[in-house]
Amino acid sequence: MQFYQQGFQPGDPRITHPADRVIAPPLKHPLPQEVDVMIVGCGPAGLNLAAQLSKFASISTCIVEQKDDRLLVGQADGIACRTMEMFEAYDFADQIKQEAYWVNETAFWKPDANQSDKIARSSKIQDVEDDLSEMPHVIINQARIHDALLDVMRYGARKIEPHYSRQLRNLTVDHSDPNHPVTLTFERLDSQHLGEMETVKAKYVVGCDGARSTVRKSIGRELVGDSINQGWGVMDVLVVTDFPDIRLKSAIHSSHEGNMLIIPREGGYMVRLYIELDKLKNNERLSKQTITTDSLIAAANRILHPYTIEVKEIAWWSVYEIGQRLTTAFDDAEKGRLPHVFLAGDACHTHSPKAGQGLNTSVNDTWNLGWKLAHVLTGRTKPELLQSYSFERQTVAQQLIDFDREFSKMFSAKPKSASHPEGVDPAAFQQYFVQFGRFTAGTAIHYPPSDLVSSGQYQELASGQTIGMRFHSAKVTRHADAKPMHLGHTMKADGRWHILAFAGEQTFMSETCKVKILCEFLHQNPASPILRFTPQSADIDAIINVQAVFQAPHREVELTDIHPLLQPSKGRYGLKDYEKVYSALCEESSFYDKRGIDKKNGCLIIVRPDQYVADVLPLDDHKSIIRFFDSVLISST
Amino acid sequence: MQFYQQGFQPGDPRITHPADRVIAPPLKHPLPQEVDVMIVGCGPAGLNLAAQLSKFASISTCIVEQKDDRLLVGQADGIACRTMEMFEAYDFADQIKQEAYWVNETAFWKPDANQSDKIARSSKIQDVEDDLSEMPHVIINQARIHDALLDVMRYGARKIEPHYSRQLRNLTVDHSDPNHPVTLTFERLDSQHLGEMETVKAKYVVGCDGARSTVRKSIGRELVGDSINQGWGVMDVLVVTDFPDIRLKSAIHSSHEGNMLIIPREGGYMVRLYIELDKLKNNERLSKQTITTDSLIAAANRILHPYTIEVKEIAWWSVYEIGQRLTTAFDDAEKGRLPHVFLAGDACHTHSPKAGQGLNTSVNDTWNLGWKLAHVLTGRTKPELLQSYSFERQTVAQQLIDFDREFSKMFSAKPKSASHPEGVDPAAFQQYFVQFGRFTAGTAIHYPPSDLVSSGQYQELASGQTIGMRFHSAKVTRHADAKPMHLGHTMKADGRWHILAFAGEQTFMSETCKVKILCEFLHQNPASPILRFTPQSADIDAIINVQAVFQAPHREVELTDIHPLLQPSKGRYGLKDYEKVYSALCEESSFYDKRGIDKKNGCLIIVRPDQYVADVLPLDDHKSIIRFFDSVLISST
Repeated sequence: MQFYQQGFQPGDPRITHPADRVIAPPLKHPLPQEVDVMIVGCGPAGLNLAAQLSKFASISTCIVEQKDDRLLVGQADGIACRTMEMFEAYDFADQIKQEAYWVNETAFWKPDANQSDKIARSSKIQDVEDDLSEMPHVIINQARIHDALLDVMRYGARKIEPHYSRQLRNLTVDHSDPNHPVTLTFERLDSQHLGEMETVKAKYVVGCDGARSTVRKSIGRELVGDSINQGWGVMDVLVVTDFPDIRLKSAIHSSHEGNMLIIPREGGYMVRLYIELDKLKNNERLSKQTITTDSLIAAANRILHPYTIEVKEIAWWSVYEIGQRLTTAFDDAEKGRLPHVFLAGDACHTHSPKAGQGLNTSVNDTWNLGWKLAHVLTGRTKPELLQSYSFERQTVAQQLIDFDREFSKMFSAKPKSASHPEGVDPAAFQQYFVQFGRFTAGTAIHYPPSDLVSSGQYQELASGQTIGMRFHSAKVTRHADAKPMHLGHTMKADGRWHILAFAGEQTFMSETCKVKILCEFLHQNPASPILRFTPQSADIDAIINVQAVFQAPHREVELTDIHPLLQPSKGRYGLKDYEKVYSALCEESSFYDKRGIDKKNGCLIIVRPDQYVADVLPLDDHKSIIRFFDSVLISST
Repeated sequence: MQFYQQGFQPGDPRITHPADRVIAPPLKHPLPQEVDVMIVGCGPAGLNLAAQLSKFASISTCIVEQKDDRLLVGQADGIACRTMEMFEAYDFADQIKQEAYWVNETAFWKPDANQSDKIARSSKIQDVEDDLSEMPHVIINQARIHDALLDVMRYGARKIEPHYSRQLRNLTVDHSDPNHPVTLTFERLDSQHLGEMETVKAKYVVGCDGARSTVRKSIGRELVGDSINQGWGVMDVLVVTDFPDIRLKSAIHSSHEGNMLIIPREGGYMVRLYIELDKLKNNERLSKQTITTDSLIAAANRILHPYTIEVKEIAWWSVYEIGQRLTTAFDDAEKGRLPHVFLAGDACHTHSPKAGQGLNTSVNDTWNLGWKLAHVLTGRTKPELLQSYSFERQTVAQQLIDFDREFSKMFSAKPKSASHPEGVDPAAFQQYFVQFGRFTAGTAIHYPPSDLVSSGQYQELASGQTIGMRFHSAKVTRHADAKPMHLGHTMKADGRWHILAFAGEQTFMSETCKVKILCEFLHQNPASPILRFTPQSADIDAIINVQAVFQAPHREVELTDIHPLLQPSKGRYGLKDYEKVYSALCEESSFYDKRGIDKKNGCLIIVRPDQYVADVLPLDDHKSIIRFFDSVLISST
């Protein structure tokens, strides 16, 4: 899609007239007095959590924001492959793919070897390695992601609309109150109710209120870390330039004028520029008062020499200092006390925006927390499960901080040359960039062993599906309708667990077929977690969704032979669900080959509601299945 | 996506609560007194035309409908590949792909050879041949297509909302009125304005008002054809069945109980059943009064024996008789008089619904007419162009009628057997089905030579892009941002002509490069159609969009070397459009190989605004380019 040619306009570019892109902010209803979950902050972390919780009709959620309306411009713009996979689970990835810029390649520029006052391209490399994800790495205004999440909230089983113009003034936790231990006081900022105070009692609170989080301060957590006093300017601009890689992500190191990153943006015309500013003195702070857009544009032109860039319109700009900081804990848990207040996104970790990890890490935070909160609030698990949030996400945040510190230092350093022998070799920077491609794509997140992640005794049965990492999708053919499709896309943002049974060499649904034996165990054995943990009134796949993949071509086996667990009768009419059985063969390759599934023995993969692999087991290791779910779920009766 | 499990609900299935899927009908504004185009009827033909015209800010369009609101249930459901390509040009194909059922395979069932009272599967075949289209053949409620077209209209450069509850009472043409020769009188049917009459004067009128079209009768055209007195029942149902191919399109011939077609529907649970009824006596008419759903369900069970089908809910049903009829002309043109009133969709051609050609042919009608009306109304061409609508579409409709007559006859015939030697061999039916796959996919439409379609002297330069047929897309890599993408998807529903220059063996943008020489001609020569037919105030690609494809890998050539015509400065800021140059190489294959482009000489393809190939020419045959556009366009000054 091409747009913004006549200037930037916020909102859905599919709507021709900008005025029609305005969505009326929700009515200014008072806050509820009591809620299950109170989310403070409508950034990506908060909205993603609200979107997840909106899938559950029985959970009451309230989300508040200090600003007076939804975001329209600026802030983050890089959407990692893994984040797109998550958006697919909400069914809006296609819309983002259509609208966004796709990062296919990255160009590296360094000082020309012969004329060091000029830059020259050192190389172009593929941005995302083949088959790292079925999703592209894309760039789009963060506001459009917000819009998509707001739609999910609006259309959910439990409708959620943000309450704007609310500032958190106070938060206290009374651990003696078993129902709503947290009390929050908000001040209204809208002119009609200016200064009015509202009090809300909540079972759980999630602070998604940014780097200066009031929630974080209220629970006595701190951001700890350092700043290297390097200032950067960022601008979303419409430009005319002779720089040849203006439509590629370009990392540019000049010899004396600093460094710059060009990120092409959605619509075909806009670009984001990250421009290095002079080193700051100790205690000197950057602000929009001390930096002008003219100075940023001038710096960009100096860095780009011999190319020039003429800025026609600035859609948004900001300045920032690099600083890597991490909170001391992601919740308010103390020894012997379970958490009731959580932190997510910038409230827990801040870092430079250049590696594009801010929004992505934030939505991954609440993607991890959302299903756990839903599990506790729907009675599927004990509240102890919530301790795993801080445990899992703090590890990831520390990796991010470490990565960003190194990346930023290398990016800001002068290129190595005869006169700067201490500088960074652009080749080394490029090497680092490639090496950490999986990390920046969000696909390297690896949760450590716990009740939710096995230690991996049988990992070799599915060598391409690493326990503790996200399920790595590939194409299969759906049996009932011969549809070529991604197996990973059957796992939606609905809070369900998944058992994926990959058949071994036995004949399809024969008496020796271990998938059939597994189905019989799960369907009839009183020890089956499905029988024990699924409420009587619910569909049989409401808590744990069992699907199976066979090696035979889809035409060679009959629907009528399939075990009823894989073709369950559901809903008020008892209609059969035909979308649980697949052939591994699709477009002339096999899922087993692509993801290292053992062809002789097959295997069973337990996938968490957030699409992370919890365990890989032999198909007939029914005891381990019992043991795993016993440690996580509780009986619904 | 899975939905309708708890019962059918109309509207967007992404919205959980059915009540929230209701869209308020537009306000009951009076009709305008004068319009450029008056469209009568909000079926797929009418809405598609309105959607196309909404892309032009200067054209006033009014669309009326007799019913009191948008369609919610029933009618057509098959969307051919070619129709999906058209929806891609409106940017909503992805949404349909996500929501719809995909027809991947078709199953054929016939009487069991050993027990002729039972059916047995004879075969399964791939539904759409490989590489026939980049789009799938899908099934979805027609109402959802209407919703998507209504959104295009709502979001267009000229916003259009239907006026409901209007019945056409009178239509007269006064050929002496040069501005608004057609006068229409409507009666309002809404309770608040019941019986009020409104008069509208229009430059052009398009009757999309169905088989009983008042517009058609007003201009004295008739539907001519026959009926074979075969009755059919159609039902959209939620069922429980043991029929193994319930999620495949299945054509079922029983030996004594008649025939049936099963079409799986969107959401994973619903199916459409087409059930043959007994032969009708002469003059006997089918109606919902004489047929009950119980009798349809009983017939379905008899046909399916030994399988059974239990209907849990009927979302929509109807009965119909097969009859193939075609109007005597598609407009009101008479010798020496240009047309002002046009007919489209069922107003011109009726036929059985089973081949899924009704909606598809209807939208193709107005897809052909839309850009021509827009051309005349924006002054790009003379009104004589409008004569080509009836010329081109009547040929296609005749083919459709002929196809449907044969297909219906074969479908309704008894299977050939010892006792019915005159019957149709199911193998012959299957053979016919495969043979006409391209026709039913909508990709076989072939317009005859005219001013708009050359006689094809140089066809061999692009053997896979047949002159008179739709441009057959394949993937290329966009040069500026290395994006793998479909070349055909650069041609949107915006009324522009396309010149696609495929480079030969000369070096990229060298002095001998024929693409460069072509660009110089088009950019600077006073005879260039671009210079002659593009308004001074418009972007250089506003009327004719020139794009180029090169054989070199995208990384081997530089943006800076590209001719300015292929990187034009556009809009109020003079921003460069970088999205016109491609490498033929994508995912290890070449567009040239896939579509038979001459690698040595290259070629030039002129593509019409409706994506049909108008001509294939040598790159240096500038005279033919001049001649072609001279016969179609007029100077804007």
